[in-house]
Amino acid sequence: MRAKHHRTDKDHAQEIYGGRDGERHRRVAVTGDEAINLTALDPAVGNDLKALIAAPALARSVAVKTRGASSVPVASITPALPVADPGKIICLGLNHTDHIKEGGYDIPDYPALFMRGRNSIMAAGAPMVRPSCSDKLDYEAELMLVIGKGGRHIPEADALDHVFGYTVFNDGSVRDYQRKTHQWTPGKNFDDTGAIGPFVVTPDELPAGASGLRIESRVGTEILQSSNTANMIWSVAQTIATISEYATLDAGDLIAMGTPPGVGHAKTPNPRWLLPGEIIEIEIEGIGICASPIVDEKDLGVKAAE
Amino acid sequence: MRAKHHRTDKDHAQEIYGGRDGERHRRVAVTGDEAINLTALDPAVGNDLKALIAAPALARSVAVKTRGASSVPVASITPALPVADPGKIICLGLNHTDHIKEGGYDIPDYPALFMRGRNSIMAAGAPMVRPSCSDKLDYEAELMLVIGKGGRHIPEADALDHVFGYTVFNDGSVRDYQRKTHQWTPGKNFDDTGAIGPFVVTPDELPAGASGLRIESRVGTEILQSSNTANMIWSVAQTIATISEYATLDAGDLIAMGTPPGVGHAKTPNPRWLLPGEIIEIEIEGIGICASPIVDEKDLGVKAAE
Repeated sequence: MRAKHHRTDKDHAQEIYGGRDGERHRRVAVTGDEAINLTALDPAVGNDLKALIAAPALARSVAVKTRGASSVPVASITPALPVADPGKIICLGLNHTDHIKEGGYDIPDYPALFMRGRNSIMAAGAPMVRPSCSDKLDYEAELMLVIGKGGRHIPEADALDHVFGYTVFNDGSVRDYQRKTHQWTPGKNFDDTGAIGPFVVTPDELPAGASGLRIESRVGTEILQSSNTANMIWSVAQTIATISEYATLDAGDLIAMGTPPGVGHAKTPNPRWLLPGEIIEIEIEGIGICASPIVDEKDLGVKAAE
Repeated sequence: MRAKHHRTDKDHAQEIYGGRDGERHRRVAVTGDEAINLTALDPAVGNDLKALIAAPALARSVAVKTRGASSVPVASITPALPVADPGKIICLGLNHTDHIKEGGYDIPDYPALFMRGRNSIMAAGAPMVRPSCSDKLDYEAELMLVIGKGGRHIPEADALDHVFGYTVFNDGSVRDYQRKTHQWTPGKNFDDTGAIGPFVVTPDELPAGASGLRIESRVGTEILQSSNTANMIWSVAQTIATISEYATLDAGDLIAMGTPPGVGHAKTPNPRWLLPGEIIEIEIEGIGICASPIVDEKDLGVKAAE
């Protein structure tokens, strides 16, 4: 989109995804508090961002059609995932010096990388599920990027050209399962623990590499993490270069950039685990707020039916 | 399939996938040295095993059609991946006591789990690529299972009902990148390093949980690993139960069961890295041989054009 339509001086033109009432996967372009249904303007836009990522010409043509198109309040839309079935979800584990220290790790000279599977992620607004087998559900505020143009061996100098947009990620972690062995996979892959969205903001709306943005997590008025994306050890460009040294990045792949200090397991004198009934919010300046209600796994059927 | 068609007393009836000459993704049923093209018998079989996994009735109906159908030599078929785009590829890292010791790890009480992405795997017979950035390409002979019926919280007692079939996996690893940090992801995710296939054998053709099968890796007459799937610490059923405690398993997901001792980095007095021009073979008794020619990344374009 390079989402410019209806832009005003004070508003960011953004992409939000999803919609309720049987249109859960429509793409909409957002300006301020209003959203335009892009899929209704052109069915080729499809069910998630993949078509727009793959075809910049489609993005331009549908942008033209938004002129004068009717809109609905953003608040009326239920978010969906930006890419319904991302090929890869790659996460940096330790990318803020102070978070590395609070976790008891040495500062590495290469990013600690792990992967999440499709079942572990859900859209902003959907329940974040505390599993029956653990009460150690933790939050992690993170910048996430959506890969646009894919590639292998992407030089750092060209890397930002491969970003379609930026979104907010809560890298929900079940800490006792994360540390059952040295490999973090189980604790990072519980069903419905990684919240994404609701907005994907194109790079033209943000500082280069989405650096210099305030990032915060909170429950109500309780501020749990508060930092800035400028404090990341590995920048977005360095991360893309590092990953693409070993793996081809594909359009729609998601990369999570690691979290600042203040996670629940490191709070003193007691850990601060997420509790059912709470709403955990992650906010990144200029991108948006990703809010997730915490629901106990055993109550999930009840909640879903409400 | 429960691949019974054309079975003889001495042959295993198996599934092989793939085909050359524009039919790269056809499904074929194999008996002995002959293969029948299932996709030609019923287009609903489709391009990979997903349709057969999803619809046991389709498997039964196409099995009936194989009676009297013409066949081609298995040797004339180029293998393809069993599932073109598996949702998850989950791997056990340390599942044989002797392999754990040779790697310098303690024996854990929970499996070390990591994930591979789609770009890191390829079919048996395709080049295994030694990347330009490292000469430390290593082999790992492993049993791999293809999930049939998906589920969450699968009890160990029911777990084997969720296996569609078993195949051979070479968990090709770039050792220096695997150990750049405590997270193994980069070294396990180089493009085209994980070889799968060529046969998927249904459980009725094998011992329960594919236990008790000889497993071996070799280059020519040089035997590099030789063990038995009975030596795994976590059985197939325990592994399915353990993973499904945290994540929903979906039809077509792949799980690799870990490797026995004898990997190249632990050989003495010198490591035994794979070299361009060699063919690494992994064989599991009753399932088949997964052979991969080693190709230097810089020669890949040349090789592909030959």
